[in-house]
Amino acid sequence: MTTKQLTLYTARICPYAQRTEIALAEAKAKFTRYEIDLQNKPEWYAPKVNPASKVPAIAYGGPEVPPDQPSPESVKLNESLVLVEFIADLYPESGILPKDPVLRAKARLFIDAVSTKYSPAAFKATHSGDGDPEAFVQALESLQALLPPKGFVVGEFSIADIAIAPFLARLEVTLSNDLGPWPANSGEGQKLLKTLQQPKLARLWEYSKEVQSRPSFIATFDKDVIIKGAERRFKAFREQKYGA
Amino acid sequence: MTTKQLTLYTARICPYAQRTEIALAEAKAKFTRYEIDLQNKPEWYAPKVNPASKVPAIAYGGPEVPPDQPSPESVKLNESLVLVEFIADLYPESGILPKDPVLRAKARLFIDAVSTKYSPAAFKATHSGDGDPEAFVQALESLQALLPPKGFVVGEFSIADIAIAPFLARLEVTLSNDLGPWPANSGEGQKLLKTLQQPKLARLWEYSKEVQSRPSFIATFDKDVIIKGAERRFKAFREQKYGA
Ligand SMILES: [Ca+2]
Repeated sequence: MTTKQLTLYTARICPYAQRTEIALAEAKAKFTRYEIDLQNKPEWYAPKVNPASKVPAIAYGGPEVPPDQPSPESVKLNESLVLVEFIADLYPESGILPKDPVLRAKARLFIDAVSTKYSPAAFKATHSGDGDPEAFVQALESLQALLPPKGFVVGEFSIADIAIAPFLARLEVTLSNDLGPWPANSGEGQKLLKTLQQPKLARLWEYSKEVQSRPSFIATFDKDVIIKGAERRFKAFREQKYGA
Repeated sequence: MTTKQLTLYTARICPYAQRTEIALAEAKAKFTRYEIDLQNKPEWYAPKVNPASKVPAIAYGGPEVPPDQPSPESVKLNESLVLVEFIADLYPESGILPKDPVLRAKARLFIDAVSTKYSPAAFKATHSGDGDPEAFVQALESLQALLPPKGFVVGEFSIADIAIAPFLARLEVTLSNDLGPWPANSGEGQKLLKTLQQPKLARLWEYSKEVQSRPSFIATFDKDVIIKGAERRFKAFREQKYGA
């Protein structure tokens, strides 16, 4: 398939955005990468690229223009899972969308579990601070139940692995650095990580290690940026919650 | 593509299930249809077909068996949107998945808005009874904003139209029959419908009429079953809430 110009608006810190970066890396796609500072978004971003003002977003087609001067002639698309499927459709040779309809359906069922089971439990336990570790363990168990005994979600590396990898990686990095919605240096993060990494979830963490060793993952993951971002976010959280 | 045996576990009343029936009708697919009585599910359904015990579900492949004796050799799939994409993948000649990646992405963005904007607002306003009509109007406006001036969501009839049609149709039927989480014969249903059908939403209701006139929709829609089901559901709701 002949592809047109593709500009990705993204942010190293954002797990949703990393999904699209992994997909583009798997596709060996030529594209223009534009980092959006989520703390200080450019004025033109919402009106000209994504009215929801979030990353990731793609401007596809239209004339070659500087990414900070998006053309009204390009198509603007957003929502990370829609974009990952879009990239898979543009680059069928990337192999990230299995050819077999049954495997595709299994990949999409896994992604549905990420969106409806993993994400809400993870958000509560590691961001809003009203989470129940046991509910999070159960969500991880339901993901693990969808994994085969070895390897990626549907055997070959696919959109399913792309959907979860950025989240498991950030979970491990932030908790092992004690970053979360709890008092500073309380050890709550490491304690939660130990709960999550209990023996009955061993297969999930083995899987997590494997997806994180994929070259497309490594090339699009920046641990330092994620730590710095989480430090800033939870400092602000603590100041608001504990006044310190 | 050569397809294997396909058994659909479904229920006339269920909008999620109707999505898969419309997709199969568009594909002119040969399949075995098995109606699940949602008030009285067969004992074998959860253990042998869908552990979540919901419809729709598909058993694909394996030996030809009576649908109430599902074979362990068939693949069991569920989640209506995953199944609609599965049917589109099995039957590319159905045309319900546009060939152009940009149109596919636009169809999936519309579906995302159905899941994340329409459904929660509709559920609150018409099922749980803690809805705000103005929030529902806004959700409908955000869907309408994604429609072209005329015709289906991406021009040609697609998975996007399949995702919303069963919901808009049930909304009109139940509200015009005053069926909802309010006292019997209060007129609340018709009042809400009038609010939703205000002039600024005219394009959405014109669109709703068009998708409801699609043969695949008509062939899979049974108004009487929907009315009877809603009568039963809201009678039970009133007995619990008002003791009458
Ligand atoms: Ca979903």
